[in-house]
This record gives sequence, structure tokens and C-alpha cells, in this order.
Amino acid sequence: VPQVNTISVKWSKGLQFNVHDEHGHTMIIDANKQVGGFDEGFHPAELLLVSLAGCMSMDIVSIVQKKGGQITSFETTIQGQRAEKHPKRFEKITLTFVCKGDYKRSDLLRAFELSRDKYCGVSATLRNAPDIEFKI
Amino acid sequence: VPQVNTISVKWSKGLQFNVHDEHGHTMIIDANKQVGGFDEGFHPAELLLVSLAGCMSMDIVSIVQKKGGQITSFETTIQGQRAEKHPKRFEKITLTFVCKGDYKRSDLLRAFELSRDKYCGVSATLRNAPDIEFKI
Repeated sequence: VPQVNTISVKWSKGLQFNVHDEHGHTMIIDANKQVGGFDEGFHPAELLLVSLAGCMSMDIVSIVQKKGGQITSFETTIQGQRAEKHPKRFEKITLTFVCKGDYKRSDLLRAFELSRDKYCGVSATLRNAPDIEFKI
Repeated sequence: VPQVNTISVKWSKGLQFNVHDEHGHTMIIDANKQVGGFDEGFHPAELLLVSLAGCMSMDIVSIVQKKGGQITSFETTIQGQRAEKHPKRFEKITLTFVCKGDYKRSDLLRAFELSRDKYCGVSATLRNAPDIEFKI
């Protein structure tokens, strides 16, 4: 049986929506005031960046620790460059990982490669587009 | 000058991270307890679904309203089916839009098509993979 994740996104006011996952978490997503939002939550397109950076960061921290590394801080910065014209897709994404602590550099590099190539489902989805079906 | 979005993802504890966008919003992302998380926030891969559903929902609500429609409720359900083997990419995504209120059905369908084909940057990024660069 394939694993299915379900998310619901419900309109609240302006361009603000309440989001629920199936594990009981909730969040607000919103848009800039200039386009009719209240700017009270993360913007949808930027959550694509959160998704990729979060997925790879979790993999890397987890793998370095499993190899016996002691991490004292770990921070990922992700930058997404948008096309100038609509739909303003992300043309180029840059991730910068900064890991501090007592670990082997080779373990960090291996953890990064394993995430990129083998474990991170977000990275794999961006490389290999899913089929998308709509009901309206 | 192309628009660039920047997000920072900073390790907190277990597999939990604090996320900051450049507009002052913060959120927690986390993983299941089974894999070493505290399950106190959205999971990264599921945020890919939030991103796509949110982006298209905002487009559709905005366009229907600009065409004079009165929306009383709008809810999008998005389901992502994962591959069984690592990296468990999303193989198939299904979006279901439910719009209630006083509007023309043809306006809703046109708004949906405009989002899918012309306005939604997330949809466009999933169709046309970005270049991804890493610094570590």
C-alpha cells in the first residue's frame, strides 16, 4: 500500500488560508498586503524552499549523528531566484549548509550526497516531476 | 534585477528546526518521533504539498473575486502519493478544489486554468525543474 499524505488548505480572509496536516499541526499561509493578503504567515512559493531545505537538513543532521558526529549548530540558508515573468518559477535554487561541532568532514560530505541522491524525497520530486491531477 | 527569496532553517533539537523567512515570519518544522523528531511541526515533504495547494488556492480565490464572484468558502485538499522506496518521491499529486458562493462556474474553471498554466510559480517549478546548487 503506497503512503499518501493529505493536507487541507481552507480560505480564512483576504488571501489568508488555514492549513491542516493529518498529524494535527496547523499553520497560516498568507500573501503580501500589496496583493490582498494580511502578511501574517509564510507565502506558499517560499514554502517550497522550506520544504527542500528542511528535508535535506534533517537527513544531513541525522546521518552525521548516526556516524558518531557531535553537532553543536547546523544552519541551512536557501535562496530561490525567480523568473522575471509570470509564473515566476524558481529558476535557480542555492543551498548553503553550515555545520559546527566535532565530526569528520568526510562524514558531512557523504551525508549531504546521500540526502541529495538517495534519501530526500523533495529533491527527488523536483528532479522528477510528479503526475498532477485536478478535481474542481 | 531578478527576485530572490531567502529562507533560513536552523537546527533546534532532535530533528526539529526553526525556520525564518525574510518577511519576519517564523515556524517550526519537525519529524515523526519514530525517526527522532518531536512531531511539533509540519514535516518538510508535506510542505511541498502546502506550497502547491496554497499557491493555486490564492490564485483561484483572487481571480474569481476579481471577476465579481462572491466566495463564502473555499477549501483545497491535496494528496501526495509517495513512492514505496527511498527517496519516496511524490509520484502522484491530486488536488481537489471546493468553492462555495455566488460565482460563475466558467469563471472558476478559467481561474483554475490560469493558475495552473500561467500564474502559479510552484506548479511551474514542479513542471520545469530548477537548477540546484549546493555549498557545504
